[in-house]
Amino acid sequence: MNAIQEQDFYPSRYSTEDAISERKDPVVYGKAEDGPLTQNELDSYERDGFLFYPGFFGEEDLRAFKAELDRMCEEGRHSDADEVIREPGSDIVRSIFAVHESSKVFRTLASSAAIAGRAQQLLGDDVYVHQSRINYKPGFKGKEFYWHSDFETWHVEDGVPRMRMVSCAIWLTENNDVNGPVMFMPGSHKWFVHCSGGTPEDHYRQSLRKQEFGVPSNRSMAWLEERCGIVQPTGPAGSVVFFECNTMHGSNGNITPYPRSNAFFVFNSVRNAPRHAFGPKELRPHMLGSRDFTPVSQW
Amino acid sequence: MNAIQEQDFYPSRYSTEDAISERKDPVVYGKAEDGPLTQNELDSYERDGFLFYPGFFGEEDLRAFKAELDRMCEEGRHSDADEVIREPGSDIVRSIFAVHESSKVFRTLASSAAIAGRAQQLLGDDVYVHQSRINYKPGFKGKEFYWHSDFETWHVEDGVPRMRMVSCAIWLTENNDVNGPVMFMPGSHKWFVHCSGGTPEDHYRQSLRKQEFGVPSNRSMAWLEERCGIVQPTGPAGSVVFFECNTMHGSNGNITPYPRSNAFFVFNSVRNAPRHAFGPKELRPHMLGSRDFTPVSQW
Repeated sequence: MNAIQEQDFYPSRYSTEDAISERKDPVVYGKAEDGPLTQNELDSYERDGFLFYPGFFGEEDLRAFKAELDRMCEEGRHSDADEVIREPGSDIVRSIFAVHESSKVFRTLASSAAIAGRAQQLLGDDVYVHQSRINYKPGFKGKEFYWHSDFETWHVEDGVPRMRMVSCAIWLTENNDVNGPVMFMPGSHKWFVHCSGGTPEDHYRQSLRKQEFGVPSNRSMAWLEERCGIVQPTGPAGSVVFFECNTMHGSNGNITPYPRSNAFFVFNSVRNAPRHAFGPKELRPHMLGSRDFTPVSQW
Repeated sequence: MNAIQEQDFYPSRYSTEDAISERKDPVVYGKAEDGPLTQNELDSYERDGFLFYPGFFGEEDLRAFKAELDRMCEEGRHSDADEVIREPGSDIVRSIFAVHESSKVFRTLASSAAIAGRAQQLLGDDVYVHQSRINYKPGFKGKEFYWHSDFETWHVEDGVPRMRMVSCAIWLTENNDVNGPVMFMPGSHKWFVHCSGGTPEDHYRQSLRKQEFGVPSNRSMAWLEERCGIVQPTGPAGSVVFFECNTMHGSNGNITPYPRSNAFFVFNSVRNAPRHAFGPKELRPHMLGSRDFTPVSQW
């Protein structure tokens, strides 16, 4: 652990111009014989940086997830907790963090063989939850989420040393062509965009509402788009997408009446736990970058 | 003319809550035998409120349109003319108005049999250009355009008395699922949303950058969506869409690198020319609501 902590393998926000370099870590750490993912699925994840399962969860599971989502959003509306994030200039709940701690339903989901089992295989290790949240993205005024690599933030602001993380999004509403679904650049996880600029202390308080740092330049995005293109998976509620921590993604706004809610879990290898931030002096709070490295297998 | 000017058939922005009523005017005024549109096309326009022609213009025409677009946008970058509208907080050219007056290329296009001929048939009359513009919607930071009926503004702020207008958009770049293409609510032209609120004098100066008045409520949009749904035509550069002046439409933002440029012409029946605004005391300037009612057939 000490050795990899001493060096910053992915420096970012140090310079006035951004730059792109090759990824220094494996993408897939486990093997097909570990299961449940097949060699085809592992190859697809290795190539694209994500795996999409339309309609993964059925009606019964979905009803339970949605009931819990509604309950928590209603509770969140009247809450002052830091875990509850609102739309800019509004009381509408946008996200609730650390739901694997506050909700039994989502804790069970996060640690299930279907979800955590896939993460363990992709990362070839025991995993813990680095971050979890539910996103309640209402219709009409859904804001865009500009292109970003999650790893860039988790590295610089949370101190995660290497790319050995995977995110899992469980869609609780339909994602269609018009309600601003997530877009990926397939293969973009093979490069790292060293972003320009610095990181103000307490940046996270703003960044949860609007990103200003750790944002790739138009030039870098055009460079990646030329090599990767853009895909926008669509599917019914209950669809699941696993995506690599460094896959470039973002979403357009959403003026349609259709909400776009999801549950979101970030898994990190227990061997890749952070010790200190690479950017600001202080790590972000526990709800964003967990200090609890207990493997989900021991929950 | 006097009789229809005396009564406001579509009152809007008079009340604190919006309301929906049925359309009071025909949709299609002409007949199939007038040509060039077939009965099927007229029926489709009557039902949906728009007609979409993917790949209508070929390579040669497109090259000419795009060269003219580029020339005018470059010219516009250094211009102080009111006709040149920029993205909020930026120097990037968003739109240039009245291009049927300033550009020979776009004047010829507007008055062509392919474009004006269809408008004449749909409106069953000689037509003039109420408004024209080119929209240069660059990638990365393309702003959303919230749901609206064009007629609501053209009626309240420009004084067009009745629904006897048609818009034609000629796409100068590809519109795909991810670059924030226009969305329509098919059949929404059969209802009129009487919006809430008033119209400040000089509203147009703000509204070209950001809409705040003449905006339908979430409740009205949900009501229309339930009956109409949402469609988002996609297609290559050179595609053309004709849409009825009261068809509800809007577009999400665009964080992709793909620009979305188009040329846009609004035709009005010469029998439906405005005399006075129904909202503010003053009509909007000529570049937004033309005072030149010369039929394109006499250009």
